Amino acid sequence: MTEHERWHELAQQLRVDSVRAAAVTKSGHPTSSMSAADLMAVLLAKYLRYDFDAPENPGNDHLIFSKGHASPLLYSLYKAAGAITDEELLTFRKLGSRLEGHPTPVLPWVDVATGSLGQGLPISVGVAIAGKKLDRLPYRIWCLCGDSEMAEGSMWEAFEHAAFMSLDNLTAIIDVNRLGQRGETMHGWDLDSYANRARAFGWKAIEIDGHDLAEIDRAYEEATATTHQPTVIVARTIKGKGVPEVENKPGWHGKALDDPEHAIAELGGIRNITVDVAKPEADARPHVFETSPLELPAYEVGDEVATRKAYGEALAAVGKADGLVVALDGEVSNSTFAEIFAAAEPERYFEMYIAEQQMAAAAVGIQVRDWKPFASTFAAFWTRAYDFIRMAAISRANIRLCGSHAGVSIGEDGPSQMALEDLAAFRAVHGSTVLYPSDGNSTAKLVAEMADLEGIVFLRTTRAATSVLYGPDEDFPVGGSKVVRDGDDVTIVGAGITLHEALKAADALAEEGVSARVIDLYSVKPVDTETLRAAAEATGAIVTVEDHWPEGGLGEAVLSVFAEDDEKPSIVLLAVKDMPGSGKPDELIAAAGIDAEHIASAARKLVSATAAHR
Amino acid sequence: MTEHERWHELAQQLRVDSVRAAAVTKSGHPTSSMSAADLMAVLLAKYLRYDFDAPENPGNDHLIFSKGHASPLLYSLYKAAGAITDEELLTFRKLGSRLEGHPTPVLPWVDVATGSLGQGLPISVGVAIAGKKLDRLPYRIWCLCGDSEMAEGSMWEAFEHAAFMSLDNLTAIIDVNRLGQRGETMHGWDLDSYANRARAFGWKAIEIDGHDLAEIDRAYEEATATTHQPTVIVARTIKGKGVPEVENKPGWHGKALDDPEHAIAELGGIRNITVDVAKPEADARPHVFETSPLELPAYEVGDEVATRKAYGEALAAVGKADGLVVALDGEVSNSTFAEIFAAAEPERYFEMYIAEQQMAAAAVGIQVRDWKPFASTFAAFWTRAYDFIRMAAISRANIRLCGSHAGVSIGEDGPSQMALEDLAAFRAVHGSTVLYPSDGNSTAKLVAEMADLEGIVFLRTTRAATSVLYGPDEDFPVGGSKVVRDGDDVTIVGAGITLHEALKAADALAEEGVSARVIDLYSVKPVDTETLRAAAEATGAIVTVEDHWPEGGLGEAVLSVFAEDDEKPSIVLLAVKDMPGSGKPDELIAAAGIDAEHIASAARKLVSATAAHR
Repeated sequence: MTEHERWHELAQQLRVDSVRAAAVTKSGHPTSSMSAADLMAVLLAKYLRYDFDAPENPGNDHLIFSKGHASPLLYSLYKAAGAITDEELLTFRKLGSRLEGHPTPVLPWVDVATGSLGQGLPISVGVAIAGKKLDRLPYRIWCLCGDSEMAEGSMWEAFEHAAFMSLDNLTAIIDVNRLGQRGETMHGWDLDSYANRARAFGWKAIEIDGHDLAEIDRAYEEATATTHQPTVIVARTIKGKGVPEVENKPGWHGKALDDPEHAIAELGGIRNITVDVAKPEADARPHVFETSPLELPAYEVGDEVATRKAYGEALAAVGKADGLVVALDGEVSNSTFAEIFAAAEPERYFEMYIAEQQMAAAAVGIQVRDWKPFASTFAAFWTRAYDFIRMAAISRANIRLCGSHAGVSIGEDGPSQMALEDLAAFRAVHGSTVLYPSDGNSTAKLVAEMADLEGIVFLRTTRAATSVLYGPDEDFPVGGSKVVRDGDDVTIVGAGITLHEALKAADALAEEGVSARVIDLYSVKPVDTETLRAAAEATGAIVTVEDHWPEGGLGEAVLSVFAEDDEKPSIVLLAVKDMPGSGKPDELIAAAGIDAEHIASAARKLVSATAAHR
Repeated sequence: MTEHERWHELAQQLRVDSVRAAAVTKSGHPTSSMSAADLMAVLLAKYLRYDFDAPENPGNDHLIFSKGHASPLLYSLYKAAGAITDEELLTFRKLGSRLEGHPTPVLPWVDVATGSLGQGLPISVGVAIAGKKLDRLPYRIWCLCGDSEMAEGSMWEAFEHAAFMSLDNLTAIIDVNRLGQRGETMHGWDLDSYANRARAFGWKAIEIDGHDLAEIDRAYEEATATTHQPTVIVARTIKGKGVPEVENKPGWHGKALDDPEHAIAELGGIRNITVDVAKPEADARPHVFETSPLELPAYEVGDEVATRKAYGEALAAVGKADGLVVALDGEVSNSTFAEIFAAAEPERYFEMYIAEQQMAAAAVGIQVRDWKPFASTFAAFWTRAYDFIRMAAISRANIRLCGSHAGVSIGEDGPSQMALEDLAAFRAVHGSTVLYPSDGNSTAKLVAEMADLEGIVFLRTTRAATSVLYGPDEDFPVGGSKVVRDGDDVTIVGAGITLHEALKAADALAEEGVSARVIDLYSVKPVDTETLRAAAEATGAIVTVEDHWPEGGLGEAVLSVFAEDDEKPSIVLLAVKDMPGSGKPDELIAAAGIDAEHIASAARKLVSATAAHR
C-alpha cells in the first residue's frame, strides 16, 4: 500500500468507527465526524507528535477539538492510536463511560472540555502561549474547528490574539462542511470568506479540498514550516462523506445513521488499523523561572488600602516566590493592579486587551500545562466570559479570576461598571471557590492560598481604600470566616465594603446598649457553617448585608446554611434592590440601603422582635 | 463664518463642555470625548435626522455611543441640540442626575445603556434590523465605537451580521485615538488593520483623518450613499485633542483634567452654540404586520409534549395574534422549536447563527423600536451573552429569552450542553422574571403572558416530552404557583422535569400513608410567597428539587421566602451536586439524586424528623 492508500484506509476506519460509536446509544454526531476524517487521518499518521502512553509528557503536541460534537472522530483517533480498545469505543455516551457526548478531561488525552462552540480555538491560543512564552518547548497545537462556530466572536478574539502574539505553533483546521445544525451556514462552501477574514487578522490561510490527501499533506507541511504567524487550513469537506444516504444532506446533524450496518459496508467494513503515532523528543523540559522566598505585603492595622491594590501587591509577591504563577488582564491592569505583577514579572504577564472571553480561555489553556494563571478585570466584565467559566469547570481547570470594582460602592461610573451579580454567577459554578476580602492583609493571605487551590477560584475586590482590620500574621483559611466583633444580641454578616459599614453599625448599636456580633464572611463559598451556626445560637437573629443584588449572593449563601436546621434564626437580607445611578460611593451605599445606618436600623428591629418573642 | 468654521466652533464647544462636565465631580472621560468631537460635530450639524422634542418619533435616526465612556461628549451634543440646559450638563455624575457616568435610557434620547464595551455596535445591528426588516423606515443608525473595543469578539459578530444582512442603514465610526485605558491598543494608528478586517467581513470601509472636517463630511456623504452594505468610517484621532497638556498622552484615560479653566481657555472658551438639528420626515409610519385572533395551542391532559415544543407552537400562535412579536434563534431552531414560528412568520424571524452575544444584542436593538423580541437557544448557551443580559436590564429593555435543554435530563450530550446555572444567573438580573413550566398548557399560557411583560424575561424549557398536567383553560399568572396535589405531611416543590418526579414520589409516599403536597413553582422569580407560606404552615417541612446546581436556583428562591419569618419550615434542597457525564435522562436524574426515589426518601426522613419533634 502507498502512503496515501494507508491514509485512506485509516480515514475510512475513522468514519466506520464514528458510525459504530454513534450507533451504540443512537446518539452523537457521526456526519460531523465523517467530514473531518481525512484531515485527522493525515494528522495522526504523519504530523502529530504525541506519546499516548505518557499524556503528561511536556513535549506532546496538543490536539483540541473545538468542534467538540465530533467526539466520535476524536475517540476513533484514540482507538487508532491504540490508546483505547474497540470495546471501550463502544461505550460511547453510556452512563459511566469516559467517552462522553462531548470530550472532557476525564480522558487523559483530552486537555479541555469542548462542546460549547467557539471555545476550543481561544483555549488553543492559551496553550500556544504556554508553549512559546512559558514552557518554551517546540510542541504544536492543532485545533479542529467547525465552520458554524466561526460565527462566534470568541473565534475572532482568538484570531486577533494569535496573530498579535505571532503564535506560529498554532494550526487551526476549519472543517467547512457547509451544514450547521438546522441548515446552511452563512458562507456555505465559500472558502475565501473564511480565508480572507483570517488573512486580514494576520494569519496564513491555506484553502484546500479536505478530502484530497495530497492537499491535506501539503497544507500541514506548509503550516509546520510557517514562522512568525499562525496558520489556518480552510478545508472544503462534505458532511457525512462516504455514506451516500447522508452525504451533504441537511437534517443529519447530531443523528446516528438509520442503517449503520449498511453504512459500514459502504465504507468498506470494520478495520483495526493501529497507527504508530510519532512521539515527541523524550527529554522535553519546560522552562523554569527563578524564584525567591515568599514575602507577602503586610499592612498596618488602621492604615487604608484598597483590596484591589493588595491583590496586585500580593500577586507580585506570590509570583516572585512561585515561578508557575502567571497573570493576565483585560486592559484594566491599572485599575485591578495586575500592573504591579506585570512590572515585576513581565515574562509571565500577558495583556489580553478588552477580550474577556479570550482572557478566560487563555487562562484555561495556560493551566493545561500546569501553570497557575491569575486573570483580572472589573468583576462586572467577567459576565462576558461566563460560558467560558462554566465550561472551565467541566474542563476541571484550575484558574484564578479576580474581579475588581464590586458593587455600587464604585461610585460615579454607574451601573454598567458595577458588579452586582458576580457572587451569584460564581457561586453557581461547579466546585467553585468565592472569596471576598475586606482588608489588605486578608486579601494578601487569600491570594497566596489561591495559587494552590483547585477549580474555579474567584476573588472579589473593592475599588475604595478601606481600613486594615487584621494584623499581617492572621490566617484566613478558605471556608472560614472571622468574628470581628463579639456580641450576643444580634449578628451582622458582611464582606468587603459592607463589613466596614457593619462595624460602624455595631459601634452605633453599642452606644444604645445593643451588642452586635460582626462576622467577616470573606469565604462566600465554601461558607463557614460552624461560625454562622454558633452566631445564630448565641444571638438568634442575623442581618446579612452585601453590595450585590439580593439573589444568589452572600445572603442566600447564609440562608442555605440553616435550610435543614430545626432551630433557625430570623435573617434579614440587606442588598441592592433598585437600579443604581451615579453618585459618590457613600451616597450610593446609603441609597441602596446597605450603609451603617440601614444596617443598624435592621438590627434594631430584629432585636426588638426577638425580645418580644422571648 | 463658513460651514467648516461653524463646525469647528461646535466641535470646540463639545470639547469645552466635556471638560466642564468632567470637572463637576472630577470624574469621567473628557479625553476620550475630545478625540471624537469633530466627528460628532459634523454628524450633528449636517447628517443626523432627529427630533429632540419627539424622541419617540419613529422616523428619528439612532445615535448610539458604543464607547459609552464618552458620555460627556454625548451630553454635550444634547446641550448643543438644545435638549438639555447648560445647568443640567453640570449635574454630570451627581446623585440623582439623568446624566449618569455612562449613558442609560433614563434620558429619553438614549436608546440603550452602554459602558460595557463591545455592545453598542451589535445593538445597533439590532436597531438596523428593525429599521430595514420590521419598521421599513429610512432612518439611519450611527454608532460611535472606540478602537479599544474592537478587541471584543462581539464587535466582529456585529460586522458579520450587518454585512450578511446588507444593513446599509448602519454606519459605524471608529474613533482610533490609539490609547486605551492603560496604554496603546494592539494596532495603534494602523487604520488599515481595522479597515482590512472590516472589508474582509463585507463592509465598506473609509479611512480618514478624524480631525479634518472636509474628510469627515465626505465620509458621511459616502456612507449615506452606500447601498447593500454597511459602512465603517475608520478615523485617526488624537485623544485629548485640543489641550496640549493631555493630547496623545498615556495616563489620561478616565480622568478629569487637572486645570479645567486653563484647558477651556486653550479651547477658546465657553460657547453656547445651538444647532438646529434636521428633523426626519413628520409622517413616518412603521410597517404593520397583519394579525388574526389568538389561538393558543391546547394539549390534552395526559398526552406527552415537550415544553420546548409547546414554546415553539405557542410562539407561533402569539406571533400570529400580535404583529409586534419577533423571534430570533441561535442556529438551533429545530431544537428550541423556534422553527415553528420561523415557518409561520418568516418576515419576523431572524436567524442569528451561533452568535449568542449578537442575538441578545439584536433583541435589545429590536425592542428599542417597541417590537417584542423572543430569542432562543439552549439555556446553557445564554451564559455566552450574560454581560449583554446584565446590560439589557440597565437599558430597561423588554426582551424575552427562552433557554431549552435544561439540566441533566437532556441525557447523552453531557455537561457542556446542560444548563445548570441558568436559574441563578437569570434570578440575579435586576427586575428579571424567571419562568420554568412543566407542561404544554402552562408553557403556552406563559408564552402568551411574556409578550406583554416588561424587563428581562427568561423561560426555561425541557428537552424531554412530559405529561400534560393541566387543562388548556387554567391560568398561570406570573408570580403564582400551582398546588398540583394536596397533602399535610410534607411539601415537595419542583418545576419542569422535577415536578414530574415529585408527583411520582408523592404517589409512592401515598402508598405508605404519607400525604405529600406537591407545588409546581413555574414562576421562580417572582416567587409565590403566599402559597409557599401556606404549605409550610400546613406541612412544616419542604423538599425542593431542581435540575440545577444547588446555588442560586429554585431551592434558594424558596429559602428566601422564609428568611425573616419567625416560624420556618425545615427545608431539604435536592439539586445536582456532582459533575454529570453522559447517560440516559432517567439514569442521570437518578445519579444526580433528583428523581422520584430520592425525593421520596428525603420526604420520608423529613416527615419522621418532624414527627419526632412534635
